[in-house]
Amino acid sequence: MLDFGNELLLPTSYGGAKILREAIADYLADSKQLSVSPDQIVVGAGTEYLYGMLIRLLGYNKVYGVEDPGYHKIRRVYHSSHVICRSIRLDKDGVPPQELEAANIDILHFSPSHHFPTGMVTPVSRRLQLLDYVTQQKGRYIIEDDYDSEFRFVGKPIPPMQSLDSQGKVIYMNTFSKTLAPSIRISYIVLPPELATEYQEKLGFYSCTVPSFEQYTLARFINQGYLERHIYRMRKHYREIRNLCLDSLKNSKLQKYISVSEEDAGLHFLLRIHTQKSDAEICSQLKRAGIRVSALSEYYATPPEEPTHTLVINYSGADEKSIHTALERLERIFL
Amino acid sequence: MLDFGNELLLPTSYGGAKILREAIADYLADSKQLSVSPDQIVVGAGTEYLYGMLIRLLGYNKVYGVEDPGYHKIRRVYHSSHVICRSIRLDKDGVPPQELEAANIDILHFSPSHHFPTGMVTPVSRRLQLLDYVTQQKGRYIIEDDYDSEFRFVGKPIPPMQSLDSQGKVIYMNTFSKTLAPSIRISYIVLPPELATEYQEKLGFYSCTVPSFEQYTLARFINQGYLERHIYRMRKHYREIRNLCLDSLKNSKLQKYISVSEEDAGLHFLLRIHTQKSDAEICSQLKRAGIRVSALSEYYATPPEEPTHTLVINYSGADEKSIHTALERLERIFL
Repeated sequence: MLDFGNELLLPTSYGGAKILREAIADYLADSKQLSVSPDQIVVGAGTEYLYGMLIRLLGYNKVYGVEDPGYHKIRRVYHSSHVICRSIRLDKDGVPPQELEAANIDILHFSPSHHFPTGMVTPVSRRLQLLDYVTQQKGRYIIEDDYDSEFRFVGKPIPPMQSLDSQGKVIYMNTFSKTLAPSIRISYIVLPPELATEYQEKLGFYSCTVPSFEQYTLARFINQGYLERHIYRMRKHYREIRNLCLDSLKNSKLQKYISVSEEDAGLHFLLRIHTQKSDAEICSQLKRAGIRVSALSEYYATPPEEPTHTLVINYSGADEKSIHTALERLERIFL
Repeated sequence: MLDFGNELLLPTSYGGAKILREAIADYLADSKQLSVSPDQIVVGAGTEYLYGMLIRLLGYNKVYGVEDPGYHKIRRVYHSSHVICRSIRLDKDGVPPQELEAANIDILHFSPSHHFPTGMVTPVSRRLQLLDYVTQQKGRYIIEDDYDSEFRFVGKPIPPMQSLDSQGKVIYMNTFSKTLAPSIRISYIVLPPELATEYQEKLGFYSCTVPSFEQYTLARFINQGYLERHIYRMRKHYREIRNLCLDSLKNSKLQKYISVSEEDAGLHFLLRIHTQKSDAEICSQLKRAGIRVSALSEYYATPPEEPTHTLVINYSGADEKSIHTALERLERIFL
């Protein structure tokens, strides 16, 4: 047992409690082969908060690039923070460097290890091209948003892009909202050493936004091995639900009208339906049947030329019964 | 006992848990004669975070005005957020409206009920003038930062400026870091109804930065009367220390070389020393003697023309013994 004494009543430094930053550094070394110093870590109340701090660090005059399709929320955070943010249309390997060049992007914000919503993983060759792009000019950086890389079901875990970076160009970020509970507002960034120093100088006067109580609790949770065990159990749980979903689809009468993709990681997969209906039509039919799903096309900043006919199926809250019910309703609509 | 069930695991809406916003509204009605709807309240992880959200709401193209002297941190938050922030030199009644006009201020951020570090209270006549100033033009607002108004020792509590405002021009803000503990990162803003609607539309996609667990705990703490009791006890405790400080000074040999002011509220007072020494000289002598105080002049954005010879004495952590020791050392330096 550690004795924290009065520390629970005192605010922590801008970066968070030392013991938590050390625990995160150990966790990153063990689980992601990422070797970082606790001094490079800044803990904050959620990723949206940390996006805002990164804008303060990297500059309001920079051009930010986000993925298209992608999370609308990230785009909205940038727009609400009054910086230029451009959506970059993905190709089959992820973000194309020539598109960054064309859009004059300084800061690329993306999720190379598991893109939302397509589930795509950026291959190493493309990662190296993107690193090359940001290394070409001073002031260019990559924000690697690794929000759900813990949930990978097939193949080896993919090392973060920051582990390829020898030039201090990649800012790694992750959150405990996905692995623990969304009510826990603890996320963190890992800054390259030079940026960590700059952060301290420019933004070190900010108080850490996470309560000390939560920080010490989480540090203990990580240090005593509970986080790893929890992730292990969750991964097992989600793998079972995922398999149940995929098997049910495979054995259903829908089977020849659909194809499934990007099912190896994350808590969702893509379901393409062979139909003439428009995406909006599909979704409104499903909604009327009580199935709330979104179409892949909803995640585009600029609508794709052709209908995607593809649904984003998030199965994190599903169970055997709800899968069965949903499937029956799907059959009724599409058969 | 209330049963929160799964709510502890779910994130709350952008503004915070309803039960906490209701508790804060009740508390404001009881203790500050401020009648607001819970829908006007936005809870966030600390005032600095909320300053940032207010900039997103009110605009990056606005000119922000802060008090001079004042908290450097507020100035630094605005500067780091890339907005124009001008320091307004105070006169004997606080912020002079003609200075706001001259500096083209859109948003005035100040503490009318207890200015830091002078302890000054803005009189009603000046409050009305300032309200008049912001009412003259669309897009002008006041941020009333009421961070330590709970600790008032003499006279009636001063109603917040928002209670004078019928035009929706005053944003009230306060924090629990001062009343409970600085490790608790919970602050809140009360928006005029029109701005509350705008907030929801523009920034409602943001997640609340305070963990649900903390929010439900604080709501219960307020609802069961613990906050009021705690403030009552703290006020009593601080009043005793303050009286001890003031009496000790009055009875010391220093008495004819000093004058004390602004001792009726907050957790500090001003100690003016009748000396020829410069402020920097005084502070470095005190520092060598192991007394860490700051000079009033340190809180100016632009240094005052004459030395203030005034120290800001924060007594919140003092006790009988430390007061005695400090006094002995002061006597050794100044007599």
